[in-house]
Amino acid sequence: MTSSSQHYNNLCQQFKTIYHFEHLQALGDWDQATMMPAGGSQARGEAMAQLALHIHTLKTSADLGEQLARAAYEPLSDDQRANLREMNYQHLQATALPGKLVQAKTELTYACEHGWREQRKNNDWQGFKPNLEAVIALVREEANILGEVQNIAPYDALINKFEPGTNTAQIDKVFGDLKTWLPDLISQVQAQQQAWPKLKLPSAAVDAQRILNTEVITQLGFDFSLGRLDTSSHPFSGGVPGDVRITTRYDEQDFLTALFSTIHETGHARYEQGLPIKWRGQPAGHARSMAIHESQSLFFEMQLARGEGLLKQLTQSINLHLNTQFNDSQLQQLVTRVSPGLIRVDADEVTYPCHIMLRYEVEKGLIDGSLTVADLPEFWDLSMQSLLGLSTQGDYRNGCMQDIHWPVGELGYFPSYSLGAMYAAQFRASMESQIGNLDSLISSGKIATVMQWLNDNIWSQGSLLTTDELVTTVTGETLNPAHFKRHLLNRYL
Amino acid sequence: MTSSSQHYNNLCQQFKTIYHFEHLQALGDWDQATMMPAGGSQARGEAMAQLALHIHTLKTSADLGEQLARAAYEPLSDDQRANLREMNYQHLQATALPGKLVQAKTELTYACEHGWREQRKNNDWQGFKPNLEAVIALVREEANILGEVQNIAPYDALINKFEPGTNTAQIDKVFGDLKTWLPDLISQVQAQQQAWPKLKLPSAAVDAQRILNTEVITQLGFDFSLGRLDTSSHPFSGGVPGDVRITTRYDEQDFLTALFSTIHETGHARYEQGLPIKWRGQPAGHARSMAIHESQSLFFEMQLARGEGLLKQLTQSINLHLNTQFNDSQLQQLVTRVSPGLIRVDADEVTYPCHIMLRYEVEKGLIDGSLTVADLPEFWDLSMQSLLGLSTQGDYRNGCMQDIHWPVGELGYFPSYSLGAMYAAQFRASMESQIGNLDSLISSGKIATVMQWLNDNIWSQGSLLTTDELVTTVTGETLNPAHFKRHLLNRYL
Repeated sequence: MTSSSQHYNNLCQQFKTIYHFEHLQALGDWDQATMMPAGGSQARGEAMAQLALHIHTLKTSADLGEQLARAAYEPLSDDQRANLREMNYQHLQATALPGKLVQAKTELTYACEHGWREQRKNNDWQGFKPNLEAVIALVREEANILGEVQNIAPYDALINKFEPGTNTAQIDKVFGDLKTWLPDLISQVQAQQQAWPKLKLPSAAVDAQRILNTEVITQLGFDFSLGRLDTSSHPFSGGVPGDVRITTRYDEQDFLTALFSTIHETGHARYEQGLPIKWRGQPAGHARSMAIHESQSLFFEMQLARGEGLLKQLTQSINLHLNTQFNDSQLQQLVTRVSPGLIRVDADEVTYPCHIMLRYEVEKGLIDGSLTVADLPEFWDLSMQSLLGLSTQGDYRNGCMQDIHWPVGELGYFPSYSLGAMYAAQFRASMESQIGNLDSLISSGKIATVMQWLNDNIWSQGSLLTTDELVTTVTGETLNPAHFKRHLLNRYL
Repeated sequence: MTSSSQHYNNLCQQFKTIYHFEHLQALGDWDQATMMPAGGSQARGEAMAQLALHIHTLKTSADLGEQLARAAYEPLSDDQRANLREMNYQHLQATALPGKLVQAKTELTYACEHGWREQRKNNDWQGFKPNLEAVIALVREEANILGEVQNIAPYDALINKFEPGTNTAQIDKVFGDLKTWLPDLISQVQAQQQAWPKLKLPSAAVDAQRILNTEVITQLGFDFSLGRLDTSSHPFSGGVPGDVRITTRYDEQDFLTALFSTIHETGHARYEQGLPIKWRGQPAGHARSMAIHESQSLFFEMQLARGEGLLKQLTQSINLHLNTQFNDSQLQQLVTRVSPGLIRVDADEVTYPCHIMLRYEVEKGLIDGSLTVADLPEFWDLSMQSLLGLSTQGDYRNGCMQDIHWPVGELGYFPSYSLGAMYAAQFRASMESQIGNLDSLISSGKIATVMQWLNDNIWSQGSLLTTDELVTTVTGETLNPAHFKRHLLNRYL
């Protein structure tokens, strides 16, 4: 096949080169967030911009485009064709937008984010509003261009940046269903939990927490010869598949924050560590999408770590390393309490989708023009009242100004969080039908069996299948929110 | 001057781009030595090779060569002309060698170094010999080509890779002089020190040592907002001027190792942190040469830290942080004991040049063909006997197999160490004639004055002057080993 797939083979070489530079990009990003001294930021910023430009140049080269066009007519295996599909996707995402728009967006969002950091603290909606208006105007332009190129609706084009193949029709249906039962469920759970005693967490030294976290994620199979755990102001998972770098943030007054965020990042990390080695460096070897990525982190954080199987082990580890005396049910109550709040990132598993549905409606409206930035505070307040019974009137800081996504122009990302939670529940259902009850497996020491299932079915698949193909192969159906509903009912009622 | 210096201006842009990629190279190297998990090495190695290739491509582009040729005829300031000189030097070093030779050297030295790591442990000269012979054959080819291009002798061309403008005639003279008095001095000092009591170092926990080292280098002006101190198996100074990363290695049984190696690296670091901001990213903004770099680290480690001014302060810090009860004279004896030994990296200030002179003679002989690899063990043994009264017969491990430089094909570097020690003494003499006795300045709390002098005279000059120009400007003469001799006599007799 060598000579007859000459263009495809050339493309593999070119994408391998791109991958090497992306490796350096991942290293630079990680270092910036964990190690870099303050004074290093200017030189680093310039070097990273140069690197981004170089990667963009490689991805948009005319030669690459020509090779892609020609490779389509070469005899390729299914896997190779999948790789070619992912190459085309990357090339399209890089080439679709005119350089001037990309540069304008970089500058506008930089200014908007910079301002937002202070404005949010000061609840300064009036100061933030014009900046956000300028960003949204540009994002609408971006959405129109990306939509036109792919022959899809503008907002769908934004979703497709993170979740290729997903569209508003699908999400509308899923969220429409959610809205019919979730608010009631929240009320019921709250009523039920009212009898729970209030527990105060004992303070825990950072060093002890670090040892606890290291032990826990080692038990979860995080391979420290292929990765690191460090500290940063916002937890993330970075690096490359052979060297995955996760971070956490320690709070001496709340050791559960670090523990569960580390477990969350470990889900991301094991996905990356488990990506197919055979396809490493090729687009088909990348993680499938943001929703599937989130499905793995949420599988670890929600399905696994909040289930009674792992909670028992966590209780032991916590008591050992933090010198506490929790019993299983106390820990369970601490990590499954449902409590509507204003802030998305602090939300529990049950109320979280409400935060996402609200943002999704806002984004759709902003892009199709049915909602303006000026309408935002009122829309937010009304939605919060209807979804969670809370008002944000006059409280912009804890309302529509709380997330970094819009100041940096990243519209289309939010749905991935809830789709990920749903995929996690759906994968779990499928796993349990094949290898047995998750909590029982963990309790009987068979965590390796669980990991093997995730590895075989999801991690090792990379991007060889589309999201729908992957989910159908693993679960026999495409996204079905019924599994998520069943999971919440099982755990919370 | 903008339009009439168009080529020069273009070159500045191109070298700035190169600099950004070199920033990423420095980050990758540092991370590899300090942070990277073992399993990350393959992917990192591939990414770094890709990056090196990219930098090489940029430095050797035909367009760059043409711009350099044209810029020579443009009206430039002295500083700009100096920058152009350094650009030409970098371009020449990158273009002179055929790609095939570079690749062959990479492969051969990789194999030779890899084998050497085991062979040295096993004292396996017969196993090492053929590998080294292959490397030396290739390095001779390299030296011939580099010499021909620059119209200088082959070994001079190797020296010029690290020390532009220096040649064997100059070094022969310097080392010739050294040989007439150094062996006698060593005997005299040893006789004198025989009366010194033997002191055993107390063990010191790594955490306490880390605090000690951090405090000491802060006092030496290391700016932690522009750099870091970490741990690696071999101490080094890396990173970029705005983000200098030094490392050390802690030994609980010998806290002086880490302390003095950290002080040494701080000399390198302050040089980097003090390079001219105006020229940052341009070749003229780089450190002058390896000998001048070494002169700064040795100024810190030898001139400053082994002098009674700083030793008093170090004694206090050590006693405070390691809970010891040294007095000044005990510490002084510990760090100025002269003791001929087989290993270069463990050598004291007085015997160190003997190790360098030996290696220099070997390299000259290997390159001009008067010495073969097969002759090496005998030559080494005889030289060690004559220079330091020690035999290495049959002891290859602690003889001619001890350094990494030859296995990796890095001939021409060794002289920089001793030239650096000499420049350090010469700079000190000049400094003292201008601002007063070094130890008195330190004792009276005027360390900032010392640092300011180094900054103004050396650090802030970057590569705007050649080594000879710089040294002449600062000291009124080119390299003069008499200062080094006087320094040793003052301190040790």
